[in-house]
Amino acid sequence: MAEATLLQDRLTKPRGALGRLEPLGIRLCGMAAVCPPPLPAPAAVAVFAADHGVVAQGVTPWPQEVTAQMVANFTTGGAAINVIARQTGARVLVVDVGVASELGEAPGLLRRKVRQGTADLAERSAMTLGEAEAALDIGAEVAALLVEEGAHCLVTGEMGIGNTTPAAALIAALTGRPANEVTGRGTGVDDVGLRHKVTVVERAVERHAGAISSGPLETLAALGGLEIAALSGFIVGAAAAGVPVVVDGVIADAALLVAAALVPGVEAYAIAGHRSSEPGATAVLTRLGLEPLLDLGMRLGEGSGACLALPVVEAAARVLREMATFDSAGVSEK
Amino acid sequence: MAEATLLQDRLTKPRGALGRLEPLGIRLCGMAAVCPPPLPAPAAVAVFAADHGVVAQGVTPWPQEVTAQMVANFTTGGAAINVIARQTGARVLVVDVGVASELGEAPGLLRRKVRQGTADLAERSAMTLGEAEAALDIGAEVAALLVEEGAHCLVTGEMGIGNTTPAAALIAALTGRPANEVTGRGTGVDDVGLRHKVTVVERAVERHAGAISSGPLETLAALGGLEIAALSGFIVGAAAAGVPVVVDGVIADAALLVAAALVPGVEAYAIAGHRSSEPGATAVLTRLGLEPLLDLGMRLGEGSGACLALPVVEAAARVLREMATFDSAGVSEK
Repeated sequence: MAEATLLQDRLTKPRGALGRLEPLGIRLCGMAAVCPPPLPAPAAVAVFAADHGVVAQGVTPWPQEVTAQMVANFTTGGAAINVIARQTGARVLVVDVGVASELGEAPGLLRRKVRQGTADLAERSAMTLGEAEAALDIGAEVAALLVEEGAHCLVTGEMGIGNTTPAAALIAALTGRPANEVTGRGTGVDDVGLRHKVTVVERAVERHAGAISSGPLETLAALGGLEIAALSGFIVGAAAAGVPVVVDGVIADAALLVAAALVPGVEAYAIAGHRSSEPGATAVLTRLGLEPLLDLGMRLGEGSGACLALPVVEAAARVLREMATFDSAGVSEK
Repeated sequence: MAEATLLQDRLTKPRGALGRLEPLGIRLCGMAAVCPPPLPAPAAVAVFAADHGVVAQGVTPWPQEVTAQMVANFTTGGAAINVIARQTGARVLVVDVGVASELGEAPGLLRRKVRQGTADLAERSAMTLGEAEAALDIGAEVAALLVEEGAHCLVTGEMGIGNTTPAAALIAALTGRPANEVTGRGTGVDDVGLRHKVTVVERAVERHAGAISSGPLETLAALGGLEIAALSGFIVGAAAAGVPVVVDGVIADAALLVAAALVPGVEAYAIAGHRSSEPGATAVLTRLGLEPLLDLGMRLGEGSGACLALPVVEAAARVLREMATFDSAGVSEK
């Protein structure tokens, strides 16, 4: 990173003129421990899918069956993440870690169901500790698999009707911030729906106070989702492989917060792809000192915002790899 | 655009969940008058280069020879714009409209010098009306040429040591805002340098009050630069061809302001690629009602920020072209 800092100042541009590309390029050198950094391409998006018992509380206007329907949409290439991944040259792997129905084989679908959806976190622990650990392991395995198969950058993706509620609960529990500051409209609840959702999150954090005080794994099991747990493992797996992981919206941010609590320091490998319009997302990024690359008002999930940030990440690396220096180009300095 | 608005709401995502990609996709349909919009790729960047007599006032710490040296760097592929354009698949064409020295032939360099640099706008008119018109025409011709040769999206680029001073003067003159609100540090002047630059801009606007009250062409000739005039013509040329033009930083924003004053409505074809950290850039975008796509603290020029925004523009089009609808994918609605 020290070498990269010096190199940035030798490239044919005024110092600092590439703005946030410059510190990002330096971080990429740190992740790979080499300067210039390896190209963070091709990238691979893992879209972890799971269902949530908390939908019984009426926290979302969408029917639960949409999770499985969207998994089918991902495998046939019609969803936003497919479009953006094709454009950016990223591979998409869909991983069923907990969809509430049985899914058949499909191209690009990895079947690793831990259970058919979580229990309702408003009434009991969403998962057992063993289930949370199993989902964490699956996420780490998927990261290792994708890197082994050629990915030089990982992207977090997810699908799970209702999953902004467990994400908000985890963020409230792990940051200590009140539910109303970290709970958002998700896919679009109205004012009444939002107030109800805040109450559900608030009560869940109270109910599971014992688990929360026991530690991050217990918190994850009590309040989380199977795809969130898998994403936490995926982020740890990326860090273990020394590969950058571009983090998407509020669900992935909640998973990153869990990962950083389980394995302090993994956030050094995380790049915040974009600022989701969900308030919990900003709460996490502020806590971890990460500034998102894009801020386009996106709130779709699937990995769409993170995938759209890949060209910025790639440019940060290419600048250090390919730009001429003042000496090599014969350009005068100020 | 009405058709595109309806289509956005049929795609497999909650309404509005793709944030600013959605209105951008609708605008792309408007520019091409077809839904879904054509793919805005491949893109082409025109880097107009010229020198500025106002450097005699000590407004920049960089020697004027850097303009020609950077043109050489562009033609050998070592500058930031080359790196980012290669990554995004955009062609780079460098156009000498007023570099202060004679340039030899080079690959990717179009020689269309109007004169060797402008006169010092602090003392007299930077250009004659005829020179400003010649540069406008060159810009429009380059836009037409690039579209004819296959570009489906144009990107504004420029190089000219000292050019943030004429840009600030044009922005002050055309928005009526005081010099200290629209003048920035450019490539990095210190506090004393900034105060001096503000004074130069302030006095220039006073000196050329007659030209400013005569109209935008007269204002451009009095305060502008040859590359700024060419960029104004380039933007008008893009609009004439019905092709989107992604606008870079403060120099291009000044050119856009001139273009919109000369040909009201051309801004409908302009996409603000990024928010330059120069204050004049934000003054222009606010005036024209354009919200930039990226905000990464970049202030390099060359077209670098606009080129880095191309994947966002392309994604906005691809979403409308490629995403499945609720009906086609069999996904339930809320």
